[in-house]
Amino acid sequence: MTVQGPLMRSKLFVPGSRAELLPKAVASETDAVSIDLEDAVQEARKAEARATAARFLHAAPPASSGKIMIVRVNALATAHFEPDLDAVVCPGLDLVNLPKVESADDIRTAAAALRRCESERGIGRPIGILANIESPRGLRRAAEIATADPRVVGLQLGFADLFEPLGIDRQDAAAVRQVQLAVRLAAGEAGIAAYDAAFAAVTDPAGYRREAAAARRLGYLGKSCIHPSQIAIANDVFRPSDEEIAHAQRVLDAARDAEGRGVGAFTVDGKMIDAPFVEGARAVVALARRLGLGAAQ
Amino acid sequence: MTVQGPLMRSKLFVPGSRAELLPKAVASETDAVSIDLEDAVQEARKAEARATAARFLHAAPPASSGKIMIVRVNALATAHFEPDLDAVVCPGLDLVNLPKVESADDIRTAAAALRRCESERGIGRPIGILANIESPRGLRRAAEIATADPRVVGLQLGFADLFEPLGIDRQDAAAVRQVQLAVRLAAGEAGIAAYDAAFAAVTDPAGYRREAAAARRLGYLGKSCIHPSQIAIANDVFRPSDEEIAHAQRVLDAARDAEGRGVGAFTVDGKMIDAPFVEGARAVVALARRLGLGAAQ
Amino acid sequence: MTVQGPLMRSKLFVPGSRAELLPKAVASETDAVSIDLEDAVQEARKAEARATAARFLHAAPPASSGKIMIVRVNALATAHFEPDLDAVVCPGLDLVNLPKVESADDIRTAAAALRRCESERGIGRPIGILANIESPRGLRRAAEIATADPRVVGLQLGFADLFEPLGIDRQDAAAVRQVQLAVRLAAGEAGIAAYDAAFAAVTDPAGYRREAAAARRLGYLGKSCIHPSQIAIANDVFRPSDEEIAHAQRVLDAARDAEGRGVGAFTVDGKMIDAPFVEGARAVVALARRLGLGAAQ
Repeated sequence: MTVQGPLMRSKLFVPGSRAELLPKAVASETDAVSIDLEDAVQEARKAEARATAARFLHAAPPASSGKIMIVRVNALATAHFEPDLDAVVCPGLDLVNLPKVESADDIRTAAAALRRCESERGIGRPIGILANIESPRGLRRAAEIATADPRVVGLQLGFADLFEPLGIDRQDAAAVRQVQLAVRLAAGEAGIAAYDAAFAAVTDPAGYRREAAAARRLGYLGKSCIHPSQIAIANDVFRPSDEEIAHAQRVLDAARDAEGRGVGAFTVDGKMIDAPFVEGARAVVALARRLGLGAAQ
Repeated sequence: MTVQGPLMRSKLFVPGSRAELLPKAVASETDAVSIDLEDAVQEARKAEARATAARFLHAAPPASSGKIMIVRVNALATAHFEPDLDAVVCPGLDLVNLPKVESADDIRTAAAALRRCESERGIGRPIGILANIESPRGLRRAAEIATADPRVVGLQLGFADLFEPLGIDRQDAAAVRQVQLAVRLAAGEAGIAAYDAAFAAVTDPAGYRREAAAARRLGYLGKSCIHPSQIAIANDVFRPSDEEIAHAQRVLDAARDAEGRGVGAFTVDGKMIDAPFVEGARAVVALARRLGLGAAQ
Repeated sequence: MTVQGPLMRSKLFVPGSRAELLPKAVASETDAVSIDLEDAVQEARKAEARATAARFLHAAPPASSGKIMIVRVNALATAHFEPDLDAVVCPGLDLVNLPKVESADDIRTAAAALRRCESERGIGRPIGILANIESPRGLRRAAEIATADPRVVGLQLGFADLFEPLGIDRQDAAAVRQVQLAVRLAAGEAGIAAYDAAFAAVTDPAGYRREAAAARRLGYLGKSCIHPSQIAIANDVFRPSDEEIAHAQRVLDAARDAEGRGVGAFTVDGKMIDAPFVEGARAVVALARRLGLGAAQ
């Protein structure tokens, strides 16, 4: 199982109500831009934010920005969900970020709504779903959510919604880690990617880097940014190191050699290597290639 | 979701076989008194302990002690369960602590038995259930248990039953933490409270405080006491700090201000605040108020 | 619930394709020998490895080596599974190690195949199953797998398959620990044993010991060895310490004394002891006895 998923080391959130920030986001180094219609937009300004997002996405030709374009719509349970989708589904939209997902049924409902919008507009390519895991129930059913529909390209962890109302301290690194691993395994069960949560302490770059590094060690592909200063850190953290790439290459070389000699287990860098390690090495090299890293042939 | 649940920072266990300790427990600083008919009572003395508990609870007018009065009955699977309930259900009883719960069915069976006892005695107010999570199966189904019936007001973690028979070392802080978070999330899914386990090393107040503090960082409301010396520690640990209360107030003030200006995301103390943080701040202030803490307006 | 399970502090893997290593493995200090037909054997040499394993197992009279004899067959989903079983089921085989188990149905299918082979050969004693938990799905369903059939005598954790393809860093001790506890609790739910994973860094004995010690604190009975140098470490780590045995004896002595006096809770070594602690002490003493440790009476 090699994990697929859009390459979004960094994904910058822009409140839909702040039209002036959108061109700046697109001009930044972020891999993805996520226009937020949900938590960062007041109830009274939902319609205005939706219109801003729609105007922006319809104006630009698809893929012209080189960014993955995402809209975080309002949750299925709200009256905003259908109008949000109606407004923003267009060729310029790559992914819908679905908040507060709690079941496979939620995913199927959203997928059906997307299908309808696409067919009405003659959009041939299915728009993907980035499913937020940000409630105890969603976390418990994360694997069911991840495997519910092929449109789900990734799980997006959300710590603010998960921890704040329950009074769980975000500074508790062990709690953060435990949830990160649970979500990573759920995404892994579906063969899709996991993306780490936003980090609210915008004046604490070291804390952001620490949490990003922890996520990367668990195989996450990227992390949300809620401030432009977080983009460079995410882009830097979510790549295999030169050392990892070199080790993976040595594993693949040794595997080729061992296959020739009919040997199933062999040693590389003091580690006994068999089938799953070879699979892991292939994943590292594939990721390095997608990131255009020089060391990967 | 603001978490409800009885305010039991401390809950002192008293073996039902030790009648002389009950008035002392009621006179202490504990928030709740839990008369134990289960693990601390030998098989041969179950009937005597039950009679002692019943006598004590029937004698005092309800709420006269200012304590939350609890009986830990014997498990559903035992012959003691029905006689225990029959003896102790009375106006002076606030909660039944149900040990070794392993399914939603267990809860429903206990709830039906409680209903029957209440109706026979004309008790109008439903007695709540504090459900023990203290087996691997119960832990796996903790969310199902928490959401099984509105009588379940809290999940009570039990490490002795969970860890000792499996040879899991209670000193292993990571294992303790992992289970604490799992139970907290299960309680959170139901919007009820979580209470931390008893701590057997009665001569180690620092260890008790450490475990209590870990539980509080995960949003627990309190911790069991099996020795009076643990009460003051629990009462001290399970309250928001002045700093937390002050930060929460600043978040609520800024949210009110931002709403006036139509802004959905704003910064407080270097943290980007949106909807879930406001919800968390409201929970902190509400808890502080319930605890009568001066700093909370 | 006292945990049963074969005493395999150490379990040495030998690739089925390396016939020359089998007598050495049997002559070593390992508690169990696991002949691998799966990941350590190349596709082109599967048939040869199978024949080697079968020849070896059929040659020796049962239990003659004093070792628990295991074959890791290929996964159910492969074409090798049936031929593997057909070849190796014989009186000299104690356990089948089943890789990549993901459901109770997998277990039931394997159990039926074993039953058929045994009946064809007139083998009266049921061969046990050691079920590998080594995928996200298998981990999520570990309790269901553990309880699927009485043939399942243990869960065997596998980190290479679980972590490598997902890019999860095996050096991440918190991630390792989290999975170890989850598997331990699942085994505990079924009252069976848990065995810790192989450790690929054969030149890092300190790392092996660290991971083994972590597993033992969680109640694991043993750990896989993929190099003979790991056997002595496993045999040393997976035993209760003299101190633990002595404490457990004191608990049992005090419990006997308390029972005489009709007391349900009492203090030993500064710890308040009630029923679950007595059960835990019994498990420690029983394990010490099975290991033939002197301090256990």
